[in-house]
Amino acid sequence: MPTDIKEIDLNAYAESCRQEFETALKTLVDIPSVSVDPNHKSDINRCAETAQAMLHQIGAQAEIIKTKGNPLVFGQLGNNPGYPTVLIYNHLDVQPADAEEWETNPFEMLTDNGKYIGRGSTDDKGPALAVLFAAKYAAQNQIPINIKFLWELEEEIGSPNFEQALKENKDKFKTDSIAVSDTIWISRERPAVGYGLRGLQGALVRLKTGKKDIHSGLAGGLARNPIAELAQVISKCFDAKSGKVLIPGFYDAVRKISESDGADFLKSGFTVNNFKKDHELNSTRTDDDLDGAKRIWALPTFEVHGITGGYSGPGVKTIVPHKAEAKISMRLVPDQDPDKIFALLETFIKSECPDAEVIKEGSLHPYMGSTESREANAARQAMKTAFGKDPAFVREGGSIGAVLSMKNVLGYGAVFLGLSLPEHGYHAINENFDWHQASGGIKMFVHYFQSLANLK
Amino acid sequence: MPTDIKEIDLNAYAESCRQEFETALKTLVDIPSVSVDPNHKSDINRCAETAQAMLHQIGAQAEIIKTKGNPLVFGQLGNNPGYPTVLIYNHLDVQPADAEEWETNPFEMLTDNGKYIGRGSTDDKGPALAVLFAAKYAAQNQIPINIKFLWELEEEIGSPNFEQALKENKDKFKTDSIAVSDTIWISRERPAVGYGLRGLQGALVRLKTGKKDIHSGLAGGLARNPIAELAQVISKCFDAKSGKVLIPGFYDAVRKISESDGADFLKSGFTVNNFKKDHELNSTRTDDDLDGAKRIWALPTFEVHGITGGYSGPGVKTIVPHKAEAKISMRLVPDQDPDKIFALLETFIKSECPDAEVIKEGSLHPYMGSTESREANAARQAMKTAFGKDPAFVREGGSIGAVLSMKNVLGYGAVFLGLSLPEHGYHAINENFDWHQASGGIKMFVHYFQSLANLK
Repeated sequence: MPTDIKEIDLNAYAESCRQEFETALKTLVDIPSVSVDPNHKSDINRCAETAQAMLHQIGAQAEIIKTKGNPLVFGQLGNNPGYPTVLIYNHLDVQPADAEEWETNPFEMLTDNGKYIGRGSTDDKGPALAVLFAAKYAAQNQIPINIKFLWELEEEIGSPNFEQALKENKDKFKTDSIAVSDTIWISRERPAVGYGLRGLQGALVRLKTGKKDIHSGLAGGLARNPIAELAQVISKCFDAKSGKVLIPGFYDAVRKISESDGADFLKSGFTVNNFKKDHELNSTRTDDDLDGAKRIWALPTFEVHGITGGYSGPGVKTIVPHKAEAKISMRLVPDQDPDKIFALLETFIKSECPDAEVIKEGSLHPYMGSTESREANAARQAMKTAFGKDPAFVREGGSIGAVLSMKNVLGYGAVFLGLSLPEHGYHAINENFDWHQASGGIKMFVHYFQSLANLK
Repeated sequence: MPTDIKEIDLNAYAESCRQEFETALKTLVDIPSVSVDPNHKSDINRCAETAQAMLHQIGAQAEIIKTKGNPLVFGQLGNNPGYPTVLIYNHLDVQPADAEEWETNPFEMLTDNGKYIGRGSTDDKGPALAVLFAAKYAAQNQIPINIKFLWELEEEIGSPNFEQALKENKDKFKTDSIAVSDTIWISRERPAVGYGLRGLQGALVRLKTGKKDIHSGLAGGLARNPIAELAQVISKCFDAKSGKVLIPGFYDAVRKISESDGADFLKSGFTVNNFKKDHELNSTRTDDDLDGAKRIWALPTFEVHGITGGYSGPGVKTIVPHKAEAKISMRLVPDQDPDKIFALLETFIKSECPDAEVIKEGSLHPYMGSTESREANAARQAMKTAFGKDPAFVREGGSIGAVLSMKNVLGYGAVFLGLSLPEHGYHAINENFDWHQASGGIKMFVHYFQSLANLK
């Protein structure tokens, strides 16, 4: 703990904020800022204006930056050229919510004994406000740091306009480091700091063998079956039982997982058993915890998301399909390159099935930060002080496009200072957040700001 | 040619019928007796009544036999216990027709220079009327035979009530032989007589690995992928490229295809090239004509009709699916037994993927008649005399449930005396029939009746 923050005062500060935090969170959650649904466009704009007002309220400069899609909200607290600058990324758009499935109205936040129930409470409005209240403290207590807030409103739809907006406002967003507060711990018992993301390469594989479906009595045996041929190609691409990818060269660039990486993965509290419960899975490809953690964070995958074509109604309809499309993607890890991986895939599929069409879909590079950088050490210290336990350094199995864009345009990787818990129901019904994580988050960010300030 | 029929008279008879045949065919085609659509129930009934009246008109006894579904029309011309009896099966229900895709109104028959365009003209109203006009001649000319007409109105929906109706009217339908006139020649150049049907065993293979689809970033690599696992199982069941089934024991009961079978297949005019054109296929599993004919008529198959589960919208959605269902069927040939084949399939799939569920769907036994029976020889002679060319004996790649039911209940296999041509557009838009096939059919059936009469 930095000597220049009195923990007792900070605890008192957090408690003093509680009422205000809860009011602010309810204000934001009650705005259905659903980015995937164009009908919520006015809610998105209202959310941006409300967030701008909240930034003004703590004394920050704030503006709404227009993009081709939804706006960004940019705030800045402190502008002292002698101080270091940190930029914190959150997002204020939310997933859709089917009110009929929820126990409460998803867009009318309910506070229940320190638990905040509503869409966006944990993803990502609650964490954004924890940052806001920490920044307010930092300003009030003259921590020598400039804090920039970057709040996106298109994260849930893949940040389609984010990188362009970064490029157009590069100078404005100039910073010395970046943190992202939009990730999930593995267990309430152990804070988690993320330092890596998997990349992604999507593809469509299409095979067309004729102009129309035909009766399998008339043609079966002589006519090709494109669904079966794609199923066979996929089986040659990877072994579905083990998950092992069989495309030659696929693993060549995969960085070795060190023993300390593995130890950190386990320290996070990850167990296959809990993973199965959280995701309601009957069984998994392994029951070994270390192997399981590596599989979701540090190893690449091959996934089939669907195979379309032919008959999809009830029962069996005896047609020979004339076309099929397999929707696939591969999660990638450092140092796999999406372009190279796509080329391997395309070459392999073409060698197995020359008339298949392989279409490139979205791709994202994998990302790997450091567990030993100054920011990583500041994060470690801040998490430990605020939550009473050493954090585990983990990776994210998914891909966050915004992190890659910020690295590309602003030149810095991000440290992931998430506050959400598995039981908060990310993207699920009855999503919630809680005061324990919020108040811990406020304190954690204060310590993080102080640590960064101390580095200068 | 039987010496007791004067071919010149018979030609004159057929020509004399032309006007009446065309009027009758238009009357039937103009009734949209679409069995798949319950809205056409009254048309089905009207069609049955019209057909009954047509039977009455040639002096036959005729009745409408009710079933749980659509009725049967049963007619009888002659009831002499000293004469042999033949039962001829046709159906009067039709496929649906999308008027917008047709060049003419599908349910308003257009006669164009000996071509009859309309839904049901070739499948199977035209052939049914050829039988009717032949029977009229037989009665007028005292051919010593009793002719029974069995006209179904649920053929296009799989004859769900046919076998039950046969059982309930077994004595009424008692016969010495059965012919079915509902099949297609391979080429206009060569009459075809069918003598075999493939059987069928359908199955659903289901695999459920969890309760909901999950994000492939969070869970990919550790979570099982049921679509990929089913794709892998299917690839182990058969080689999609060659079509060869890999399930142990699958081919054990397959009857060897004789050289004369093969020679007859080729004599039919079958070519892979025409098959590709007819079915609008880009390519096929073989380009060899004999291999191709064997594949559709005399060899069993494994077919995937669809794989459902996961994401089926446009592009790629990065989920790990939690369930999948493969819709499969196998066409069977003599002497494969559907129950045994299903047991082999289930055992094999369970050994590859123990938690997959294998659900039995519809099954039909394969059927094999003779090419050397008295009826086959009568058919050979009748086709040759009427159409001027030796017929080819071919098999049907599909399954006709009604044939199996008649064999089960009435005790006789059927000889397939089809009159339709590939260019008539069975089940397709602009379906048609023509006077050449109709008049040839009338003459052919007269000769067939005479041959059967001569046998006694």
